[in-house]
Amino acid sequence: MYDLIIIGMGIGGITAGIYAKRGNLNVLMVDKNTPGGMLNNIEKISNYPGLINVKGSDFANILFEQVKELAIPYKLEEVINLKIEEDVRIVVTDKGEYRASNVIIATGTKPKYLGLDNEKDLLGRGISTNATLEGSDYRDSDVAVVGSGNSALQESLYLASICHKVYILNRKTGFKGEDILIDKVKNNPHIEIIYGVNIKEYQEIDGKITGIILDNDMKLDVKGVFIYIGYRPNTDIFKDLNITNLQGHIIVDENFETKIEGVYAIGDAIKKDIYQLVTAASDGIHAVSNISKINN
Amino acid sequence: MYDLIIIGMGIGGITAGIYAKRGNLNVLMVDKNTPGGMLNNIEKISNYPGLINVKGSDFANILFEQVKELAIPYKLEEVINLKIEEDVRIVVTDKGEYRASNVIIATGTKPKYLGLDNEKDLLGRGISTNATLEGSDYRDSDVAVVGSGNSALQESLYLASICHKVYILNRKTGFKGEDILIDKVKNNPHIEIIYGVNIKEYQEIDGKITGIILDNDMKLDVKGVFIYIGYRPNTDIFKDLNITNLQGHIIVDENFETKIEGVYAIGDAIKKDIYQLVTAASDGIHAVSNISKINN
Repeated sequence: MYDLIIIGMGIGGITAGIYAKRGNLNVLMVDKNTPGGMLNNIEKISNYPGLINVKGSDFANILFEQVKELAIPYKLEEVINLKIEEDVRIVVTDKGEYRASNVIIATGTKPKYLGLDNEKDLLGRGISTNATLEGSDYRDSDVAVVGSGNSALQESLYLASICHKVYILNRKTGFKGEDILIDKVKNNPHIEIIYGVNIKEYQEIDGKITGIILDNDMKLDVKGVFIYIGYRPNTDIFKDLNITNLQGHIIVDENFETKIEGVYAIGDAIKKDIYQLVTAASDGIHAVSNISKINN
Repeated sequence: MYDLIIIGMGIGGITAGIYAKRGNLNVLMVDKNTPGGMLNNIEKISNYPGLINVKGSDFANILFEQVKELAIPYKLEEVINLKIEEDVRIVVTDKGEYRASNVIIATGTKPKYLGLDNEKDLLGRGISTNATLEGSDYRDSDVAVVGSGNSALQESLYLASICHKVYILNRKTGFKGEDILIDKVKNNPHIEIIYGVNIKEYQEIDGKITGIILDNDMKLDVKGVFIYIGYRPNTDIFKDLNITNLQGHIIVDENFETKIEGVYAIGDAIKKDIYQLVTAASDGIHAVSNISKINN
């Protein structure tokens, strides 16, 4: 029986783990993937205080080192269910069941896709949501980036440094990211922005992308398409608990507790105003502080 | 005329500066001291996500590098007044006046002292609130640490690594810091904890401490006394604005705005539940987000 199980080892979950461990809670962290969460999908982070222009995957590695340095217990297993009983919350994974007084859900988000017919089949074969990981497969080729936010901007800049040409397909007429990034994108000679368009069709030969057709019937001979049209909360397995809204965001109170006692949620998975690395970490500290108070 | 002036360059102020700069606000930061604020007083930080067991002064240096890397404008001047006029907030320093639409107060805290007669005269001559900076002056000597919280615990451990013996003078019967630190302190052979006592008198020869007398009349031949009995908000210059409570903490709403429009406050200077590096940074992001919204 643990005092606390944290589901998800992104920056929010790991910060909660650090504070729980140092506060002497009997804590366990669980994540199916490499720790770091969405950090692993970001090429460069320039707004995190204390780390200057850090590569997301390096940041993720530092967090994992920190977990090991503090000897915070963790298991790399996939959580498939969360069961609520009278005085115990049971975290069910693909390998076993773990019982705790409190649970923090820190599962973050997952990328959205366009929803075109052959899209899922082409994942990793021309379609990607992770330029950091897969960008180098398209070195010196032409690629397209779909999106208009910070991720689209940041990753376009990275791709422009290794690819021949980057088309940004912006469905709207402007960008909604940081001004500093918008300026850089607009001034980059390897980037061409096309406004007011969307992809109508992926063209493929032998299961690999050879080009795309836009909804204005323009054709682009790109070998790679990077989709950054937003993220949706990674909360499907918690649907039956009725703690999410229509968009899948978990609803929490000012202590980051859901309507189920002892079930907390933090970071990008919850409904809130600001989604940043620092704010996810801050959420984690608040949740653990509340759990520690009740525990003592 | 600036969009935003940030008073104080600790982690809260600098994070606000990073977000303001990247959001294209015309921003200025002002601090009389070396950037980093209270970080410069902390020997080791083990709970900040992304930096493993970092020395406070190193963390401060990284933040200053980050300010320079992002070319965030700053001035190392002492703020002596904040004047409010109809549509402008005027920050008065010892060198000049700067005008802005918005101000964020991020002045943090300053150490409390015991209040004994010759205390102020002995600062830097046996009395210190900064073991990191001044601990090495007492190498192989006996020293005393006054306090019962995380700072007292953490700095005692540091002093125990360089001094002959460390007495912790705990006015109460227990500690209120992290369990992990309490355990380490109790198991350290160079540390002796004395409970339920306070210092009655500093003994000095030639303006330097030679020993202390406790309120139980016990005498300790220590050469150094490190005081960690808490901090009070660094908000004296804002007293006339009537935005502080009796303890000097600034009162803010959920957007970190005071009752004066365009005057925000964040971090350790405000009244809130949790005072951590990450939460101060998070406060800064929230304040800037609100200012940007209004600015657009």
